[in-house]
Amino acid sequence: MGGTVDQPWKRGIAIPESRESRRPMFYRKAMMSEAQANIGVVGLAAMGASLARNLAHKGNTVAVYNRHYSRTETLINEHGDEGKFVPAKTLEEFVASLTKPRAAIIMVKAGEPTDDMINQLADLMEPGDIIVDCGNAYYKDTMRREKAIRARGLHFVGCGVSGGEEGALKGPSMMPGGTAESWKTLKPILESISAVAEGEPCVTHIGSDGAGHFVKMVHNGIEYSDMQLIAESYDLMRRGLGMEPAEIGDLFEEWNKTELNSYLIEITAEVLHHVDKKTGKPFIDVVLDHAGMKGTGTWTVQTALSLGVPVTGIAEAVFARGLSSQTELRAEAAKQGLEGPSEVVPMPLEERQAFINDIREALYASKIVAYAQGFNEISEAAKEYGWDIDLAAVARIWRGGCIIRAQFLNRISEAFESGEANVSLLFAPYFKDAVETVQRSWRRVISRAISFGIPMPVFSSSLAYYDGLRSKRLPAALIQGQRDLFGAHTYQRVDEPGVFHTLWTEPGQEEIKQA
Amino acid sequence: MGGTVDQPWKRGIAIPESRESRRPMFYRKAMMSEAQANIGVVGLAAMGASLARNLAHKGNTVAVYNRHYSRTETLINEHGDEGKFVPAKTLEEFVASLTKPRAAIIMVKAGEPTDDMINQLADLMEPGDIIVDCGNAYYKDTMRREKAIRARGLHFVGCGVSGGEEGALKGPSMMPGGTAESWKTLKPILESISAVAEGEPCVTHIGSDGAGHFVKMVHNGIEYSDMQLIAESYDLMRRGLGMEPAEIGDLFEEWNKTELNSYLIEITAEVLHHVDKKTGKPFIDVVLDHAGMKGTGTWTVQTALSLGVPVTGIAEAVFARGLSSQTELRAEAAKQGLEGPSEVVPMPLEERQAFINDIREALYASKIVAYAQGFNEISEAAKEYGWDIDLAAVARIWRGGCIIRAQFLNRISEAFESGEANVSLLFAPYFKDAVETVQRSWRRVISRAISFGIPMPVFSSSLAYYDGLRSKRLPAALIQGQRDLFGAHTYQRVDEPGVFHTLWTEPGQEEIKQA
Repeated sequence: MGGTVDQPWKRGIAIPESRESRRPMFYRKAMMSEAQANIGVVGLAAMGASLARNLAHKGNTVAVYNRHYSRTETLINEHGDEGKFVPAKTLEEFVASLTKPRAAIIMVKAGEPTDDMINQLADLMEPGDIIVDCGNAYYKDTMRREKAIRARGLHFVGCGVSGGEEGALKGPSMMPGGTAESWKTLKPILESISAVAEGEPCVTHIGSDGAGHFVKMVHNGIEYSDMQLIAESYDLMRRGLGMEPAEIGDLFEEWNKTELNSYLIEITAEVLHHVDKKTGKPFIDVVLDHAGMKGTGTWTVQTALSLGVPVTGIAEAVFARGLSSQTELRAEAAKQGLEGPSEVVPMPLEERQAFINDIREALYASKIVAYAQGFNEISEAAKEYGWDIDLAAVARIWRGGCIIRAQFLNRISEAFESGEANVSLLFAPYFKDAVETVQRSWRRVISRAISFGIPMPVFSSSLAYYDGLRSKRLPAALIQGQRDLFGAHTYQRVDEPGVFHTLWTEPGQEEIKQA
Repeated sequence: MGGTVDQPWKRGIAIPESRESRRPMFYRKAMMSEAQANIGVVGLAAMGASLARNLAHKGNTVAVYNRHYSRTETLINEHGDEGKFVPAKTLEEFVASLTKPRAAIIMVKAGEPTDDMINQLADLMEPGDIIVDCGNAYYKDTMRREKAIRARGLHFVGCGVSGGEEGALKGPSMMPGGTAESWKTLKPILESISAVAEGEPCVTHIGSDGAGHFVKMVHNGIEYSDMQLIAESYDLMRRGLGMEPAEIGDLFEEWNKTELNSYLIEITAEVLHHVDKKTGKPFIDVVLDHAGMKGTGTWTVQTALSLGVPVTGIAEAVFARGLSSQTELRAEAAKQGLEGPSEVVPMPLEERQAFINDIREALYASKIVAYAQGFNEISEAAKEYGWDIDLAAVARIWRGGCIIRAQFLNRISEAFESGEANVSLLFAPYFKDAVETVQRSWRRVISRAISFGIPMPVFSSSLAYYDGLRSKRLPAALIQGQRDLFGAHTYQRVDEPGVFHTLWTEPGQEEIKQA
């Protein structure tokens, strides 16, 4: 902050490129009453401020407003010279400073604060104006808000933003929903600030109403699964092979040059190489092993359950974080000392090298399953809610800016583009071959982890899903038999259409057709 | 039905044991206007009619009402001579026929029909009267209804009923919630009709408001897990060992004499022995392998996710049913022929016997995990909602009448009674020993299934949970490192209290304490 508030022009307060801008005397008045900003940002905490700066860096004129003006002042004082900002003291001023159709991004706390801000803005806006919620809203809230705002003649766009604070500042991956009409206005603005991957902006119109927040939610679910798979690989090498964190970090660095190339593998190497300043120990060893979470993983699984789509890898990843944070349970378990394999048999060097290679391949196969399940959830939701979602485009905008950005998303987008992945990513030849090639390694890794007593819930669950898919007959027939016996829930037959029930308690125990 | 409606006394229309009953002339009038029934049942479809008959069999005088009177007539015509029924043509008549405090069980369709019926009854009832919903309601709906009805001075009791139609008729396991006051009235009535296990009625007051329906929901979740574990065991023997259904049925019959003794094991043997009348094939082979579900399993997992309690076995069981019913996905998978282990290596007889024994032991261990997770979910919900739930009593009332009734529930109730299972069932010496004794078999079974390519999602997931619990350090520390690096989500340390963040992008990469 400091004493420079009285010289706003020094810090890039918007000097509009209009007739008025050439008449300095008019400037202050323009600031107060004339529309000059092509985009606005409400809520200037870390994420909002970063988005506003990013917008300004890319040549947009950015109206900024925060409930407490001090945050607005801080932004202008510290970053005002980075581009054209129009600071507003009141929401009225903020809205008045936007050119029509007005577009305002809100980045405020989830829940009631978001609802309040949407309503306040809607009261001040006119038909055709656009409110964009860039927070991590639950897609059903977004659907509800979109409906309410649409009824008032305005556009409401729920827009997922991935990449954290740095992404917001330097280029996030953005997933806007809402109307096609609002996308016309937003397209150039969002494309100006999003990340760029292979020359393409990492933003696309996902679909109507809540589609953007839905896809962002599943993105986060896949992120849970990706992170847990990396953690399980680390655990197996650390405890199973007795390797040191830095050594494992070196491996991840190597792996980052393979088909696993991705942001998460890259930062894993960084975390594993990091040495704690205070103790000189590997950083990873001083961090408490209780994983936190903020809800999007939980939503992804709860929603998949409602849609009837198995997302076993994401579920196990969410539960693994849950278990890690159950302090009382884990303390008691440690006290009790539950029995298990007590020692790991040392491996000859060559076998060990081969085993490490197996782990890399198994990680890749499990990761493909996680993406297959996540994309399935998006497909099912698209059917359920009537969203026209281009899965290839979703894969493309995840290639840059976001946490799960990875090289293999190129292949995923190709697989959807060609239609090969329509039913499942696992059926696209590239991925089918990839998994089939490594399925033996995958089995070896999990069997070994089981004999070591090292938990690999997502690895195991992903393989079980693959083997489930492979099964021409599943034992679900037995479950149907049990259900019919105890609850008369009926069943279908393999050789005849219709619904059947067996008269289990009658002497003949006949099968009778019910419909 | 038939022509006997004009002789109601023949079919046991209530002849009250009061002064009036000795005055036949007064009889009709009493039926219409005098309170004589100590319990009423609204909704006379399969479950409701069975409950009403059960109540009448046990000496209760049962008022019965159905929206369409024809159902009431059918009940009276076919079963009127089984006890004392007071059929009502209108809801007014129904309410008037109940002695005070009036207690009415409703067994109507979930959702709006249930809400409507509750409101209609409440309009006709007086303070102190009791409405009991014996349907499979979602516990949050029960909490909402209880609150609304309580505000009107009446009691609302959500009561879980397990055991299907036969249980309802001959003795179900019953899980009532609601007020302690309502329990005073309901206790003798519900105890008269519930199943009896080792001399004790399988009903207890679970806790206030939605506690009964919550416990019933988790009961069903455990049932999903139990059934899937049995199905996976069957699959491994069928496909992995090439055994015939009847042969596996014989085994389940044997297993039913071991610690696995339970209703589900018993009926599994029956289903596997059953021969299809039409084709002469094993019944199991003509049933379509798409498992159905009705929602309580899904609720159990969604709720566990909200509570932060890992119920991995139940989740995998629900997802396994989901996968089995994904017709398009499975058809495409079959067409594509995903590669995997192609042949099962024959086993020498002795090895095979040992392996079958391993499967039984692994099934038992996995089952213990499923119950441990389910009971954890109940504990956490009790904390969340302020329910005073006696877990030992819950285990006791599940010993009879319900689908998951099993001999080992005696041990479970003892483990909770002694306090040994307070933190987890897995820490009670009896179960800890049981699992430790078989953990090697457990590992062998899953490793082998993996090498055979046979999916065992719940077996695998249960073992991963056990190994997760056993782990003094989990790789969640790596996840915390990643989260701090990409999102400044902070972490805790093992050697100092507080919240920390590493300055990952600064040259010194220092760890700084934030709070």
